[in-house]
Amino acid sequence: MKKAVILLSGGLDSSTTLYYAKSKGYSCHCLIFDYGQRHKREIKSAKGIAKKANCESQVVKIQLPHKGSSLLDNSIAIPKNRDAARFKKGIPSTYVPGRNIIFLSFAVSYAEAIGAGAIFIGANAIDYSGYPDCRPEFFEAFKKVINTGTKVGSKRPSRGSRLGVKAPLILKSKADIVRLARRLKVPIELTWSCYKGGETPCRVCDSCILRAKGFKDAGLVDKYNG
Amino acid sequence: MKKAVILLSGGLDSSTTLYYAKSKGYSCHCLIFDYGQRHKREIKSAKGIAKKANCESQVVKIQLPHKGSSLLDNSIAIPKNRDAARFKKGIPSTYVPGRNIIFLSFAVSYAEAIGAGAIFIGANAIDYSGYPDCRPEFFEAFKKVINTGTKVGSKRPSRGSRLGVKAPLILKSKADIVRLARRLKVPIELTWSCYKGGETPCRVCDSCILRAKGFKDAGLVDKYNG
Repeated sequence: MKKAVILLSGGLDSSTTLYYAKSKGYSCHCLIFDYGQRHKREIKSAKGIAKKANCESQVVKIQLPHKGSSLLDNSIAIPKNRDAARFKKGIPSTYVPGRNIIFLSFAVSYAEAIGAGAIFIGANAIDYSGYPDCRPEFFEAFKKVINTGTKVGSKRPSRGSRLGVKAPLILKSKADIVRLARRLKVPIELTWSCYKGGETPCRVCDSCILRAKGFKDAGLVDKYNG
Repeated sequence: MKKAVILLSGGLDSSTTLYYAKSKGYSCHCLIFDYGQRHKREIKSAKGIAKKANCESQVVKIQLPHKGSSLLDNSIAIPKNRDAARFKKGIPSTYVPGRNIIFLSFAVSYAEAIGAGAIFIGANAIDYSGYPDCRPEFFEAFKKVINTGTKVGSKRPSRGSRLGVKAPLILKSKADIVRLARRLKVPIELTWSCYKGGETPCRVCDSCILRAKGFKDAGLVDKYNG
């Protein structure tokens, strides 16, 4: 059975990506990151979702050498009640410098060690917060890093790399992702999106707003926000 | 004063790179990685060298999700008494999948958070063990990741990125590096290269062999091996 490494945050997008990879016949190995995020409770969600999907998971604890993001530093306010249509106009304080570069670098290391042929990431460049490391051009550049900087990538380059990065949601709207999640029977009620990580979703952070927009546009009810 | 992030392992090459960056007028912020390496004692050397250079340093503890290298797994033998001329013919068991990708990804995150304009890495593609993530083409690919995946890189792309990756030793021979270290007054006696990490250098691992070759070719005596 072909193996894949899945970057699983416990949110709607990465959980849908896990189920998508499963539907494509991959044996999925999930990496869950504990990187000092405010919304640490997403880790619990991620573990629960991996278990529900009958997939192996590992929590990787990362100690970032700085606190340069409102997701890392409680003294910086998380933007609220922003207009989703304007999210792409700038990069908000929730941006964590280099986060997807770090997550992918661990995924590459793990994939090479266990002989996985693909890394799946739930990044989206349509209904998103404008993070540069969620855009197609970033993933294209990262593939070249794999092709030049790893053992698996630098072998037989003429036949293409044997380790790919797949971002199946990259050009989908949030409504499309919600529909796909339903179709794939993702346990949506177990996912966690809110940046604040309180007892219940705050419903005003960018992540809650995008999620609500997706369900509304899809004409479906989200038990999470219900 | 312009800031730089330095990847400092405590070996001869990264220490020389630190002193090189200092000589170019950078205020240096060193990242030292504790990634489960056998030769953990290099961390002590790195801390001592950063202190000697009057530079800030941080030890970043990384928990890799696997043990796929003889540098991580004590049950795998470290190659010994190999012929340095043949090192480039294959990738040895000491290769740690994705190591420089991971180290650089933390450096990017840190550089962006503190507003550094450069990342320095002591990689070398001449007298080296054949690791793919030490070659010029890998660093070129990684620069594109910075240009597409970060806030600092994606601003003003027409004027070039404001965060560069510099590998000043990349095309130098080990003898040239030894000479440069002497000229820059690197505290060579504090550096540690041996993969085994014992009380004294083993003198038979690839790293000890390359170091000895460098001093021999430069016609200098290495107190480390003396």
